[in-house]
Amino acid sequence: MRKPIITLTTDFGLRDPYVAEMKAVMLSISLDTTIIDVSHEVEKFNVRMGAYILTCAAPYFPKGTIHVAVVDPGVGTERRAIIIKTKRFFFVGPDNGVLALAAEKHGIKQVYPITNRKLMLSRVSGTFHGRDVFAPVAAHLANGTALEEFGPRISRIVMPSFAKNVKKGKVVAGEVLYVDDFGNVVTSFGEKELESVGAKEAVCVRFRGNDLMLDIREAYAGAQAQKPFALIGSHGFLEIAMNQASAAKRLKAKIGDPILLHLV
Amino acid sequence: MRKPIITLTTDFGLRDPYVAEMKAVMLSISLDTTIIDVSHEVEKFNVRMGAYILTCAAPYFPKGTIHVAVVDPGVGTERRAIIIKTKRFFFVGPDNGVLALAAEKHGIKQVYPITNRKLMLSRVSGTFHGRDVFAPVAAHLANGTALEEFGPRISRIVMPSFAKNVKKGKVVAGEVLYVDDFGNVVTSFGEKELESVGAKEAVCVRFRGNDLMLDIREAYAGAQAQKPFALIGSHGFLEIAMNQASAAKRLKAKIGDPILLHLV
Amino acid sequence: MRKPIITLTTDFGLRDPYVAEMKAVMLSISLDTTIIDVSHEVEKFNVRMGAYILTCAAPYFPKGTIHVAVVDPGVGTERRAIIIKTKRFFFVGPDNGVLALAAEKHGIKQVYPITNRKLMLSRVSGTFHGRDVFAPVAAHLANGTALEEFGPRISRIVMPSFAKNVKKGKVVAGEVLYVDDFGNVVTSFGEKELESVGAKEAVCVRFRGNDLMLDIREAYAGAQAQKPFALIGSHGFLEIAMNQASAAKRLKAKIGDPILLHLV
Repeated sequence: MRKPIITLTTDFGLRDPYVAEMKAVMLSISLDTTIIDVSHEVEKFNVRMGAYILTCAAPYFPKGTIHVAVVDPGVGTERRAIIIKTKRFFFVGPDNGVLALAAEKHGIKQVYPITNRKLMLSRVSGTFHGRDVFAPVAAHLANGTALEEFGPRISRIVMPSFAKNVKKGKVVAGEVLYVDDFGNVVTSFGEKELESVGAKEAVCVRFRGNDLMLDIREAYAGAQAQKPFALIGSHGFLEIAMNQASAAKRLKAKIGDPILLHLV
Repeated sequence: MRKPIITLTTDFGLRDPYVAEMKAVMLSISLDTTIIDVSHEVEKFNVRMGAYILTCAAPYFPKGTIHVAVVDPGVGTERRAIIIKTKRFFFVGPDNGVLALAAEKHGIKQVYPITNRKLMLSRVSGTFHGRDVFAPVAAHLANGTALEEFGPRISRIVMPSFAKNVKKGKVVAGEVLYVDDFGNVVTSFGEKELESVGAKEAVCVRFRGNDLMLDIREAYAGAQAQKPFALIGSHGFLEIAMNQASAAKRLKAKIGDPILLHLV
Repeated sequence: MRKPIITLTTDFGLRDPYVAEMKAVMLSISLDTTIIDVSHEVEKFNVRMGAYILTCAAPYFPKGTIHVAVVDPGVGTERRAIIIKTKRFFFVGPDNGVLALAAEKHGIKQVYPITNRKLMLSRVSGTFHGRDVFAPVAAHLANGTALEEFGPRISRIVMPSFAKNVKKGKVVAGEVLYVDDFGNVVTSFGEKELESVGAKEAVCVRFRGNDLMLDIREAYAGAQAQKPFALIGSHGFLEIAMNQASAAKRLKAKIGDPILLHLV
């Protein structure tokens, strides 16, 4: 039988040897595992950016995939290391919210803290649990080690206070979830929020004190140059975009910015 | 029998989850395929840069390799999605020229448009055909699905108007094909053009209004510091280079710049 | 039996087709080899940065792994191409010191120059030995080709004059080995040097003309904001770090900077 895939989402960047060390440890324990990089360019310490990227990518992987995410400003402190089992996947990483968003979406079934030192590297540093804890744990999981071996089952994880859309009278308040490399501004709104404000062909958005009336389109191409528009992007979120230009630069948008959806 | 390799060339960058989503879709359909990244750092929407990079890398892969390239400013519009079969490879991507340069070099045998929705993801977005169309198609190809299954054979593809060298009297006019990360300026000229102007130990080039007499060398090392020189690079093109310095910065060269080769 | 892993450490960057061409050549010769990127973001021509990154990552890989490193300012000149066999690994690359640091740490057993042209690509360029020499050699090694086939055994390699710590009276002189993407300043000092100056809870360092008294901590988290501190990092070196900030930027530190450790 084929070993499950292991994915990696970190803020380590690609220049340093850290990602390769994690892969080396995993391959030493589970040689024929397939390792796929999700992203190593998460902004340093930005747990919510890591959580968003993992949440986008995770569902497309085959059942049984082990998703490892290490954006871990609290490494070496009392923050827990955990494994979350959902209906389709395993999630491995620090218990700081980086796994929670993706795991919750897939239905959390069980949570285990990682406490069994026999399933870590023999020397665990205080600064690099990606290599010393999460990589060997993911590889042992890929080898079929039972969840109970890692630590005694627990029932709670840290749930991050990520963007929840709030309807107040005629507006829905949300925020910028992500800004992608094309400059598309991904908001926390989806089809549901568009419907709730009656938006069909256009949507009215309040951002940085300005009201923007945006056409709702289905593709980037064909839009008028220099003019931002809205669309439901490929992950189901409302995006503000421009045709071959950066809407984020134009609107000076960044992750976490508040944004309002108006009744049309 | 081993599954063919799938390669990826895109302008998606490495921070966003998009490349991982393509890989996830491919591995879900064809688990034991080997996926190799060619580049995800093609300049956004720069079809000719994508075409050049793919053209360089493609020939070194084993026979049967499936090359996927997604630089796709027209995604979601009427531009076609195609599969090109050449003597040694398959090329999968939008019909906008990004595949044509590499495919033509290998002898185009057949072209198929991708129209069979059963071989795409069940939901096809208007913005991310890399994940929803090209990834599943490549994976089905890797699984051995017959070309006719994807759509009815066609005979024409979009041929990009990339650099063709033109001889006019005593000069050959060409252009800058690529500027690599070392700052080497790759031109559209090759051995043939050097011969046609009688260049042996030195070559005279007109660039940005200046005539440059460049020594023709065989290696970067050993050249005088601060002095640009010419060489036939590892892909057979005439390059303008400097020893441990950026000729592109020195000459202010960028992709598409016109350049002339003079009779020596 | 499984083929050994091949790792890659280069200064090629990730935009150009060069890394993919190396992988294509390796897979053409040895299809089921696993290739792992260590880093392609070594600063151009910075042999010691490549050597450091390789030295960090190498030991975590399984026995038999073939480590290829190509930071090669002398490509196309008389500098030798070599294979070093150590107790656990093979190292393949130019004989300019990029392999020596990692290889020496693992106990060099044998060295072979690469001279047999039958084990290279049929056309060897003067500019890209990564693809034309080192990639095919690594793949043939992975296939089990005997070391003697590559060339007649030799006994010496170029040993780089990398940082050696020197004790002078009450101080130990060393240097900055590396600055990572988090801004951690990795020095050439380790536990041994800390002991030799009697440092336990704090350490006194002289850097750029300033004396810094740094607390010695075990983790990045929990440290006072804006205040540099010291710790023994995950590779055994003394690092100067800050909590979620860049110590390198604060101290204006770069690779090769001299640094002194004072008696406490």
